[in-house]
Amino acid sequence: MSMTNPTTLSAAQPAANAAALREDMSIRAKLVETTIDALLPPTKGGDARLIEAMRYATLGGGKRLRGYLAVETASLFGVSEQQSARVGASVEMLHAYSLVHDDLPAMDDDDLRRGQPSTHRKFDEATAILAGDALQTKAFEILAEPATHTDASVRIALITAFAAASGAAGMVGGQMIDMEGEGRALPLDEVRHLHALKTGCLIRYSAEAGAILGQADAELQRRLRSYGANIGAAFQIADDVLDATATAEELGKTAGKDEASGKSTFVALLGIDGARAEAERLTKLAIEDLAPFGAKADRLKALAYYVIERRN
Amino acid sequence: MSMTNPTTLSAAQPAANAAALREDMSIRAKLVETTIDALLPPTKGGDARLIEAMRYATLGGGKRLRGYLAVETASLFGVSEQQSARVGASVEMLHAYSLVHDDLPAMDDDDLRRGQPSTHRKFDEATAILAGDALQTKAFEILAEPATHTDASVRIALITAFAAASGAAGMVGGQMIDMEGEGRALPLDEVRHLHALKTGCLIRYSAEAGAILGQADAELQRRLRSYGANIGAAFQIADDVLDATATAEELGKTAGKDEASGKSTFVALLGIDGARAEAERLTKLAIEDLAPFGAKADRLKALAYYVIERRN
Repeated sequence: MSMTNPTTLSAAQPAANAAALREDMSIRAKLVETTIDALLPPTKGGDARLIEAMRYATLGGGKRLRGYLAVETASLFGVSEQQSARVGASVEMLHAYSLVHDDLPAMDDDDLRRGQPSTHRKFDEATAILAGDALQTKAFEILAEPATHTDASVRIALITAFAAASGAAGMVGGQMIDMEGEGRALPLDEVRHLHALKTGCLIRYSAEAGAILGQADAELQRRLRSYGANIGAAFQIADDVLDATATAEELGKTAGKDEASGKSTFVALLGIDGARAEAERLTKLAIEDLAPFGAKADRLKALAYYVIERRN
Repeated sequence: MSMTNPTTLSAAQPAANAAALREDMSIRAKLVETTIDALLPPTKGGDARLIEAMRYATLGGGKRLRGYLAVETASLFGVSEQQSARVGASVEMLHAYSLVHDDLPAMDDDDLRRGQPSTHRKFDEATAILAGDALQTKAFEILAEPATHTDASVRIALITAFAAASGAAGMVGGQMIDMEGEGRALPLDEVRHLHALKTGCLIRYSAEAGAILGQADAELQRRLRSYGANIGAAFQIADDVLDATATAEELGKTAGKDEASGKSTFVALLGIDGARAEAERLTKLAIEDLAPFGAKADRLKALAYYVIERRN
């Protein structure tokens, strides 16, 4: 997908920055991976199988979009990667718990996750339920530890924003609305609201987390929060477009699944061109949010393109 | 069951204190109930059903042993009930989430909880999974709020102890070991370890939480932590004795279930008299832990008896 109206962008934008972003995402995905590995070491006692399931659910790949956002936004304020990678690992653990529970037979009943057996297929349902539960606990525990930030009030601010983004008024609330909406046509504003909660809140938190960790002033914190909300919304619309246009080979999973299941998607509501235009509009808003950061935010700008240009 | 050797007790112990305890538990159960109700108000939006399930799982009774412990231990240090009831509500929400997930078909598959349909029977499995997830988040969120304590480092200490008690190295780890141990005979030390994690950690935390909230010195904190661990262990042994000796009417659930399912219980390992003696030994240790508090801790002493003398 090419941008139809790239006038709001810095001249150097697409090619060079996209290449830099890819390299940076790969480096930071490894950093987050290593951090999760260290925070969740394998054990030999009675909890060995539980820890193994938690590791299975969290390690071994993915783009680490949420972890990347936390580390990259924190770097705008000179926060050490030792600290920001912990916040990145924490949000990836929470994201992983939500996927483990979402894949359960009583929920979406998915046997595969990134081409591998989902956690309840690899282990069993009870282990998957408990591993998800313990991953959520661990995600909060990591934020509370002094290694995340020396100032307890900063850790409290992270925990507060994290809980708001992931609980009944955030991610879990969105999953519930999604489940209840299955099989009936939702209007556009409800689809927007559902996704703002289900995937948007945690992506927004990830961008905001770097600002909290960096003790940014209220205006910069608001800017990054808005940036996160905008790319989160664009991300979901791009997902719908991908489902409707990409091949199964590109996606690594069944394509056209949304239409087949009669889900209320942005593509169903706006058409493919309309959905693309909406994603581009949100991307531009996200880039405008970054204005005060200048060239320091070039990678975050490239990321705003990346979420709508990716093919998987 | 009467105490065979009550020589370590204050003279005024049994009758008067037991009556005072019953009244106090009833008053504080109401306080915790009111606090949960206020922290989790019903809603009318898209999250109405999720919140309804969370309220169903947490409101409407129970002894509130954990909530009581938090409020009562905090009162030793003059903490306001407004603050301690929040901590009590938080731990009861966490306990409720663990019961909701434990009752699921993939776990213990229980249709009833306190004589009422379990959450997944009243709603559905997906709603029960999500309600449990959101209750855990809410429990952490409450602790992080300034109304719990003005000092952020006290809130962080609560969150840290809470996460340790409830995660993979605590309650959830215990549930996993319990599940893996089903159908095979466990030796006494493994049964002890399993219950120390599964039910003991959260009861211990509840007693410790009051000391953290009250900013007690390290020795008093250690004392209440030990008290909580001892009554937590006694509580579980008494549960096994009850299952083997009480009628279904007394229990409000099927009696003799443990023996029928071939579970490794303290009664199976020690016999009924041996299990009773062990519970009494732990009760005495718990009472010794309270020595520095004098008469202020009379209700906590009475509670140590209560956990082994109750008939349901």
